[in-house]
Order: sequence, then C-alpha cells, then structure tokens
Amino acid sequence: MSRSTIKVTYRLETPGDIEALAAKIASDQSTGTFTELPGETEAVRARCAARVEAITPLEPSDTPSFPDPGGSGPYHRADAVISYPLEAVGTDIAALMTITVGGVFAARGPTGIRVMDFDLPQEWAVHPGPQFGIPGSRQLTGVAEGPIIASIIKPSLGLLPEETATVVKQLCEAGVDFIKDDEKLMSPGYSSLEDRVKAIMPVILDHEQKTGKKVMYAFGISSADPDVMTRNHDCVVAAGGNAGVININSIGYGGMSFLRKRSKLCLHAHRNGWDILTRHPGLGMEFRAYQKIWRLLGVDQFQINGIRAKYWEPDESFVRSFHDLAEPIFSPADRSLPVVCSGQWGGQAVDTYRQTGRTLDLMYLAGGGVHGHPMGPAAGVRAVQQAWKAAESDVELADYALDHPELAAALAKWG
Amino acid sequence: MSRSTIKVTYRLETPGDIEALAAKIASDQSTGTFTELPGETEAVRARCAARVEAITPLEPSDTPSFPDPGGSGPYHRADAVISYPLEAVGTDIAALMTITVGGVFAARGPTGIRVMDFDLPQEWAVHPGPQFGIPGSRQLTGVAEGPIIASIIKPSLGLLPEETATVVKQLCEAGVDFIKDDEKLMSPGYSSLEDRVKAIMPVILDHEQKTGKKVMYAFGISSADPDVMTRNHDCVVAAGGNAGVININSIGYGGMSFLRKRSKLCLHAHRNGWDILTRHPGLGMEFRAYQKIWRLLGVDQFQINGIRAKYWEPDESFVRSFHDLAEPIFSPADRSLPVVCSGQWGGQAVDTYRQTGRTLDLMYLAGGGVHGHPMGPAAGVRAVQQAWKAAESDVELADYALDHPELAAALAKWG
Repeated sequence: MSRSTIKVTYRLETPGDIEALAAKIASDQSTGTFTELPGETEAVRARCAARVEAITPLEPSDTPSFPDPGGSGPYHRADAVISYPLEAVGTDIAALMTITVGGVFAARGPTGIRVMDFDLPQEWAVHPGPQFGIPGSRQLTGVAEGPIIASIIKPSLGLLPEETATVVKQLCEAGVDFIKDDEKLMSPGYSSLEDRVKAIMPVILDHEQKTGKKVMYAFGISSADPDVMTRNHDCVVAAGGNAGVININSIGYGGMSFLRKRSKLCLHAHRNGWDILTRHPGLGMEFRAYQKIWRLLGVDQFQINGIRAKYWEPDESFVRSFHDLAEPIFSPADRSLPVVCSGQWGGQAVDTYRQTGRTLDLMYLAGGGVHGHPMGPAAGVRAVQQAWKAAESDVELADYALDHPELAAALAKWG
Repeated sequence: MSRSTIKVTYRLETPGDIEALAAKIASDQSTGTFTELPGETEAVRARCAARVEAITPLEPSDTPSFPDPGGSGPYHRADAVISYPLEAVGTDIAALMTITVGGVFAARGPTGIRVMDFDLPQEWAVHPGPQFGIPGSRQLTGVAEGPIIASIIKPSLGLLPEETATVVKQLCEAGVDFIKDDEKLMSPGYSSLEDRVKAIMPVILDHEQKTGKKVMYAFGISSADPDVMTRNHDCVVAAGGNAGVININSIGYGGMSFLRKRSKLCLHAHRNGWDILTRHPGLGMEFRAYQKIWRLLGVDQFQINGIRAKYWEPDESFVRSFHDLAEPIFSPADRSLPVVCSGQWGGQAVDTYRQTGRTLDLMYLAGGGVHGHPMGPAAGVRAVQQAWKAAESDVELADYALDHPELAAALAKWG
C-alpha cells in the first residue's frame, strides 16, 4: 500500500475554532458522516483518513467572506495543510477535485475557504502535461529567442470568414508571430470554424510561401462535446494549421483530457470563468493550485492577463501567476508558455520584464494595441517589438521612444 | 439569419451606475475591446451585439460581495436581462459559458455578479436531455409510485470490495430500491471499480433472482478522462448494472457530453463543487441556471440536498431547487428525478412533502439515517418508508410513530 499523500493547502476562515474546522474537513472528506457508524473501524480509518498536517495562523478579519447573517467576528483565519492518502484518491483529477475540493465547500462552519495549493506526489507525473510548451511554441513559430509577439482578430466577434482573412493578411504582413481567434469565437452561424479555416489557412500558407515564416494561427476549436471538438481539431490539422484556442473551463477536465490525447495542435488556453473561482480573495481557488491541474492536462500556452490589464485582476496577482507557471511541477517540460495579455500595447513591457524575473520566455498578446495603433497595425507590431527591446536593454520606454516613432505614437495614444 | 436570442439574467451589484454596468457587459461580451476600432461597423454590431432587455432594481446593500478596499456603498443592485443573438452563440454549451458567463466575471466595476437564469430558445432542444429521467428511474427500480427509497454505502470510504458487498446485501435485504457508492469513491487502489463491480453485482443479481426485485446500484464511474469513464461504464453494463454516480463538476461538460451519447446507464449526478459557484448569494450562479445546463446534458437523477441538510444550504434554497427541477425546459421529458439527500433519516419527509408541492416523484436518500438506526438498517429503511406514508397521509410524524416502532426509534434518536 502506498504511503504517498496529496497535500492540499486551504485558507480557512471561521468565527469558531479554526483547528476544529480543519479537523472537520479532514474527517468529512474521508470517512465521516453525521452520525457514528459501526463499520468505521480502525482499518478503514487507516486506509483513508485525511490528516491535518499544519496550521499557520493569519490575521483575523472583521468581515466574513461568505455573509454571516446574525453572526459576528472576529473571523479567525489560517492556512491549513491537509494530507490525503494517495491510496484513497488515486491519480484521477475527478477524484482529486471531488475529494479535496468539491465537498469541502459544502461544510457548515467556515465563512471562507480558498484552495491555495496542491502538493502532488510523484505518482501524479503520469499525466501527459504540455505537448509543445515553451520549446514547441518557439519551434513552431520560428521565434528562437525573445518574446513571441502575438495579436488577436478584432473586432472579436461579427466578422465574416473572408473579412477575418483580410485581417489575418494584414497581421501577417505586420510581422506578428502568432494570431488567434477571440476566445468568444468558436463556430457561430455567421463564421463556422470550417469556413474560417478555409478562408484563413490559405493566407497563412501563402505568407509562409512568400516569406518562409509560418505564423501560428490558433483557431477557436472549443466545444462542450469532445467529438465535435475533435472534428474541429482535425479540420484545422487537415488544412495545415498548428494551434487551437481552448476555453478550458467551458470544456472541462473531460474535454481537455480527451483532446490532449488526440491532439496534433499547440493548445492555447483561455481561462474565462476562472474569475468566478478566484476573484473573491477569501473564496474559491488560487491560480497557483488551478494552473497545476491544467498544465498536467496539457495546456501549452496559458493566458494570464498582464500588468495594467483591462480586467479586475491586480498586477501582483498577474506577477504571482507568471511565477507559478515558471515553476516545474515534476519537470521543466511541464511548464506552459505564459501568455501576457489584456489591454497590452507595449507600454507594459518594461514593467512586465522587471517584475517577472527578466525572462523573455513568454508570448505577448496585443489586440486593440495593434489594431488601434494610430499608424496602423504594422506600426502597432513594431511598437510592441520596440517596447520589448527597451525592456531587454533596460532602457525606459520614453527614452527608447525618442528614436522609435511607432513606440512614440503608441505612448502618445495610450501612455 | 436567425432572430432567436438567448436571454441571461444577472444579479448585478456596483457602487457605480448599474445601467452603465449592464451596458458594459453587453458590449464586452459581444464586440467591444478597450479602444475604438475601425472594423467595428454597423454590420458587425447587428450580427453580434448583445442587448440589455430589462433592469429590475433591488434594494441596495451596505456590504460589497467582492471586497471593495477603499470603496464605499451604497452598493446598487439590480437584476439585468441581457439578450445574445443565437446567431453569435449557437447551441454549444462551451460557447454559452464562454460568452454569457465566463468573461462577465472579469469586468472591472461590479462588486457582485450572479447568473440567475438562462432563457434558452427552442433551437437548444437539440441537446439530448435525460435518457431515463423520472419514468426510466421508476421503471428500472420497479417503483411505480411513491418515493424511491435509497441508501448509500457507509462508511463512505475505506471498505474493501468484499466488505462493501456485505453492506450491499444488508441494504438489499433491508428493502431499499437504490444504493450508491459515496461520491468520493471512484476507483481507488484499495477498491477499484472493477473489483467493486465483481463483488457487488452478484449480490444485486442474486437478490433479484430470489425476490424479483432488482435494486439499482449506482457505481462511482467518474473520471476526468472520458476514455476511462467509458471503460468504467462498460464494465458496469457488462456485469448487468444499470446506474452510475457521476461527479458532474469534476468531469466537466466534455466528460458528461461524451458519456451521455454512449451511455446505457441511469446517470445519478452529484454536484460536489457546486457550493463554490453558489454559496455566496451575491456571486457565481444560482442553481436554477446551473441545473438547466446539466439536465440538457443528460442528468437522470440530480442530488439537491434536503430539509435540514447536514451542509450549509438553507431549506429555502433546497425547496427552490426542487421546484426548478420540476419545471420542463422544452418538454416534461427533460426533467431529472430530484434526489433529496444529506442528513436525511425520514424526519424531514413530512416537511419535504409539504414544501415541494406534495409530489412523490423523488428519490429519498438516507445514508447514516439507515445505517445508524438503533434497530439496524432494515428498521432504518422501514422508518423512512413509514415517514413517507405519514407525509402522504398528511399525518404528523409523532402521531404516525405511535404504532410504528421503527419510526418511533428514529425520532427518539434524531428527532
């Protein structure tokens, strides 16, 4: 019988006793129910019992995370590490989620629970992980060093396939390394995936023919039906494409697992819906825990917002996400390429570089920042490239812009 | 081009202007980005633009749902209905989730968002829905009328397959109609699904041989890998089983969709993880919205807690869930059988009956309430049956217990 354990760190909050709460979670998630049972023997407990390993107290809070009508604080807070025997959980992600996450949020007592981290034993290295990851993304785009410069079709929805192809041509000529469908574009009536592939792939291949550069185009292949998603995947592959956008929360673990086993595409993950899990700091799940599961499932490129994103996420949270992605789970090959995105136009390049460990192993995705550049999209791409040269050379953007007019124009518009 | 729309009701909360917030969501989730774009023409907008249809103001709140450091109330609240063109979303659940749910939670501005309901057009009737539902569950269990009386293996984890089979035999003899694995039990090292099927199915079939009654046993077949889940399904079918427990959030839409198309089993859904989505009343998603999606995907039996559940969920929420399940989406066949559970022992039967519209179309699941009965599990089952007879006859439990000793003993212990 294996002695390995899975350790899960929870941020707990309760007006009651925090050690008792941790103990209750460990009991509920192994053998307990609401009444004593004759069959709950020592042998049963030894096989399955979860155990509280450590409790680190945090500052109490005056406000409960879940509303606590009629109740009053202080709301005690702590990080509790609970270990679960591998023998009882196994290596299936559905089992991990059900036993260590799902049921925990049902308990009476806590006013807050957040899953902070999973510490997975070596047996979990059976999961496939990214097929392409950082080296594969570099190889397929031909970008041996420096950030992979990327853009997105805008407007995000509503263009007909031929109109999209025109935008693709413009972006290829502008010099991007990567283009993607908006995550909201999958296979709607006015622009089915099949029609889009037919319209776009000739542009990509023609550009490759002329320039030797194959721009990576990630098509929105997501479907809640794995059979449909596989057909979408095959359609892209047959036309010579090499990437797909997948809305990981909208396809679920099952969809991702199924696709990864059969995939020939570089899988670019959009995490829409993640905010529901993570936006309240006392509830849900930290990105650190979340991203481990999706990397093990096979995400090659992971969108994680960026500095001064257009969304709610604070910069510190993005920076933590970046570092989380950079940390191997079992080996460096299980790292996904971080995709820095949301409201990016180059102006955040220097800050991004300085705050993420001065690495250039990233994709930098500018949508509006390329399309909306006052001198046109080609200038938009050059502005982004210039911003990253400034970052790499440790020069302030304003200084670098002095003899780089595209960057200067971007700074004038958005700086 | 179809004129159909998908209408989504959001409960919004913001210290700012609530109409502006609704308009921003409609714009963000169709064509908008952070800067004006030349390609966003009238034609594009007409194809894809989401529209605010109605705003119903609610009482403002003093406390924000998401923390609002440095901010102050009142936090304005309203229910906003936004319509999305079917042409832009299609009928894929991944598209619905990405466009109308996922991205919405990323916006700056709101201090609270909760998806209250989906109003889906007739085109969405393409989804399979339950294969067995209420009539199929009755037919397979042979319970033509009255509640389907169910129990669960206890202790929930840790028994070896042969030990589990002994409990199954006891429960069959006790007279239950349905037995299930605990949702936390899938295929752990000490009790693989295959070994469990081998140990349990002969007991079920033997009991059928002797009594003519085939107790429905739902095996924990969930896996995050649809191929593994299909193998699990096939293993149960090959041994003569007719049901499976599926942890819907842990397999995801992809897993469920894949399984439903191939399934010969009655699919009993456990919604662990749902609490993360729903427990904070200002955030996430209401069960009403959530259950529609899973019913369309094919859930036959839906666990929804019960009156005085052992979990956090208040009774009113359970009662609403029960009514939500009873309402057809497109036809009565798309209703799942409600499974009333969690801390049930019969004592809640009368209240359940009175508060859920005096229907007996339900499964009543008692785990500890059967196993922990002072006179043994057979008496536990009889106590539950007696409690439901009391409910149906509109008699108070205490009165009915006067000449029903098993119910009297249950009342004495838990009442």
